[in-house]
Amino acid sequence: MNDVIKLLQRHRSIRKYKPDVVSEEVLEAIVRSAQMASTSSNVQAYSVIAVTDPETKLALSAVAGNQQHVEQCPVLLIWCADLSRDRLACEREGAQMISGTMENFIVATVDTALAAQNAAVAAESLGLGIVYIGGLRNNLREVTKLLRVPELVYPLFGMCVGYPDHESSLRPRLPLRAVLHREVYQAENQSEAIAEYDATVHDYYIERTKGKRNTTWSKEMADKFSRPSRAYMRAYLEEQGFRFD
Amino acid sequence: MNDVIKLLQRHRSIRKYKPDVVSEEVLEAIVRSAQMASTSSNVQAYSVIAVTDPETKLALSAVAGNQQHVEQCPVLLIWCADLSRDRLACEREGAQMISGTMENFIVATVDTALAAQNAAVAAESLGLGIVYIGGLRNNLREVTKLLRVPELVYPLFGMCVGYPDHESSLRPRLPLRAVLHREVYQAENQSEAIAEYDATVHDYYIERTKGKRNTTWSKEMADKFSRPSRAYMRAYLEEQGFRFD
Repeated sequence: MNDVIKLLQRHRSIRKYKPDVVSEEVLEAIVRSAQMASTSSNVQAYSVIAVTDPETKLALSAVAGNQQHVEQCPVLLIWCADLSRDRLACEREGAQMISGTMENFIVATVDTALAAQNAAVAAESLGLGIVYIGGLRNNLREVTKLLRVPELVYPLFGMCVGYPDHESSLRPRLPLRAVLHREVYQAENQSEAIAEYDATVHDYYIERTKGKRNTTWSKEMADKFSRPSRAYMRAYLEEQGFRFD
Repeated sequence: MNDVIKLLQRHRSIRKYKPDVVSEEVLEAIVRSAQMASTSSNVQAYSVIAVTDPETKLALSAVAGNQQHVEQCPVLLIWCADLSRDRLACEREGAQMISGTMENFIVATVDTALAAQNAAVAAESLGLGIVYIGGLRNNLREVTKLLRVPELVYPLFGMCVGYPDHESSLRPRLPLRAVLHREVYQAENQSEAIAEYDATVHDYYIERTKGKRNTTWSKEMADKFSRPSRAYMRAYLEEQGFRFD
């Protein structure tokens, strides 16, 4: 295992930061690394908003369910799927943009995630810690207003970045055989792998919380997926000009 | 700049590979690195199918518009957004899964992309080259049949992996100021940045093709986005059990 693989495999989310600022040079190295991720047909369908203003961070923290680290981190990156530049490109060429396809929505969402993950790796290689903030999707209308997000752009997730002020433990993942299939999708492996993972997750929580958290992965997933989640999302995305035909 | 950032910033797609196989050990290191990427609420909503069978690769290459490297690469990874394990978890707990939300679709798509990008970085750190194959989305019904992809799973993209047998050039990206915004979204920066990038891309193509390819980023985007793209996508995803309410 080389140092890069060690770095990738020791990732854990960091939710408490030293007060040290993230320098301009470091921020640019992170975003330039993000930009070199693969992009579908060179679309580069993303933007990232670096937020350091305390009032904005406080407001975004409230959106995310009062996650303190959103307020506390020195810089909060808001990763946005962005087709607005492509509309500008069409306008420059006198062409009419067809933005309304599921395919274009997928391209923009994937491009953004690939870039953000490169940023996460770059940040961690520089001794920074990060945590993704999907909780911004609790209320994207509010985020859109706060950050003046235009049409054909939507904030996909946030990412807190800062120098770690705590240790956190590696969270065990699904067994490899649940995720890695050979030649075709191997549905027959799943039940046994989930049962094994349930036991692993149970033991991990019991040890980590001194017996207080007594659950399994299946229980957590059943709880999460048996309730409707952010049901306003489709309507919001349509307000931003996305279509799903 | 440390070695990780250098690695990230020298990424280019590789489309021709030496015949050397990718060992089991290397494949596992890559997928285990992918698994350590961040995941929304520990959902881990992805699967990856490692395809080495020549007939399957040939068939998938045809789907992707006869991209030779899809057939030629020693291993083709098919990254799938996967909510099927979450349904199994719900069934284990006697809960009824609500799969039909845009939010769940976004979670699965993003989780898959984050994992895949970690895999790309891990592979490149081991001296391998990769290229993403969005062209599989030309006909996901065919991919689904070939790889026996079950309900609540969809192939998002492929990734050819192998030892590089050619050099390729770094493709210039949008100016940093187009992508990196400060405190709020800065729409006012975009036009000038696009004009600058158009000139950069023009010169890059002219030099690379000895004058044969005479275009700009705006022209490429206008061409791409003024035509409907993969219009069957929404219907296919619904066939796989995804909903967008």
